[in-house]
Amino acid sequence: MSRSAAGPEIERLIQLLAKLPGLGPRSARRAALHLLTRKDKLLEPLSDAMRIACERVATCSVCANVDTQDPCAICRDAKRDASVIVVVEDVSDLWALERSGAVSARYHVLGGTLSPLDGRGPEDLNIGTLVDRAMAEEVTEVILAVNATVEGQTTAHYVTDALSETGVRVTRLAHGVPVGGELDYLDDGTLAAAIRSRTAF
Amino acid sequence: MSRSAAGPEIERLIQLLAKLPGLGPRSARRAALHLLTRKDKLLEPLSDAMRIACERVATCSVCANVDTQDPCAICRDAKRDASVIVVVEDVSDLWALERSGAVSARYHVLGGTLSPLDGRGPEDLNIGTLVDRAMAEEVTEVILAVNATVEGQTTAHYVTDALSETGVRVTRLAHGVPVGGELDYLDDGTLAAAIRSRTAF
Ligand SMILES: [Zn+2]
Ligand SMILES: [Zn+2]
Repeated sequence: MSRSAAGPEIERLIQLLAKLPGLGPRSARRAALHLLTRKDKLLEPLSDAMRIACERVATCSVCANVDTQDPCAICRDAKRDASVIVVVEDVSDLWALERSGAVSARYHVLGGTLSPLDGRGPEDLNIGTLVDRAMAEEVTEVILAVNATVEGQTTAHYVTDALSETGVRVTRLAHGVPVGGELDYLDDGTLAAAIRSRTAF
Repeated sequence: MSRSAAGPEIERLIQLLAKLPGLGPRSARRAALHLLTRKDKLLEPLSDAMRIACERVATCSVCANVDTQDPCAICRDAKRDASVIVVVEDVSDLWALERSGAVSARYHVLGGTLSPLDGRGPEDLNIGTLVDRAMAEEVTEVILAVNATVEGQTTAHYVTDALSETGVRVTRLAHGVPVGGELDYLDDGTLAAAIRSRTAF
């Protein structure tokens, strides 16, 4: 341990900031100093924003999104297509799809993937609530927008089985070349999928 | 603007996190999500740490360090050499020197450099308080640990002039090759300084 010029309260702030993705121990110290030397302009507003987030943020009881209201703004949005549910692994995937603007339906956040090695079984994911939602008469399609990883695909198969009793159509995202992607940098599996699913030009 | 899946309170949290050094808009969103999905383990403790920092952090009235007590822990530390004052531009430099363990004296934080272009004159820096401190009988040396930039050196000259009336010895950090530094990557000025200040092997 190197010597520290800061008291225990500041050390604790640095340690907690270092737990944020994108900040290591060194950049956490820089971030803390940035905050401490901008008390009025940044530290106080950020402290307030975190306290408000603490008080108001909750997991949506319908789709497991995080928001400041329950059900979340997306589940409340009457303009969304109620016939489709887009299933994602994590809230970060939901946010990414929302940013893309490609989804006008609602979501269901599984809360991870099946992972026997990590001791994560079906009961640890929000699968039961998905089946319940898919039972509703207006739902006709569930899109599995899970990652194209082994764990994602294993989970997709399990979810598909669980949904079989509901009679909804289960679809998955298309594989292919990312927009702007260079073929050179793509793996063989993606290239093969892109060839198989080729479309007329 | 892309669509956002989050309410205004969460958007505000993201915007404030994006002001931290090391976090851009994209990583601020990831950091916010990381916090929101770890409410008990991270968001609440960090919120508390920031509130405590807000309440307790103050600028040391002696040296302008930031700490949770005034005078700061370094100024209070009776084991430190009272005959030397190490002058730095910013608190980050003070922390860096403390981590190095090379300083057993106290500091004086100028709060920046002279910069006519940015409208920063001598009255905007903590120079008057430095001169006052240097007047004290026990102080015999002021080490100017400012950056080896044009602005840092301009500031160093100004501070040296201001200290001339006090009779203390004014020194500066040695120039040379950084430990572990490769000559190939060093600029000519550093190399020339390292040659000039060469020592017996
Ligand atoms: Zn929801
Ligand atoms: Zn101090």
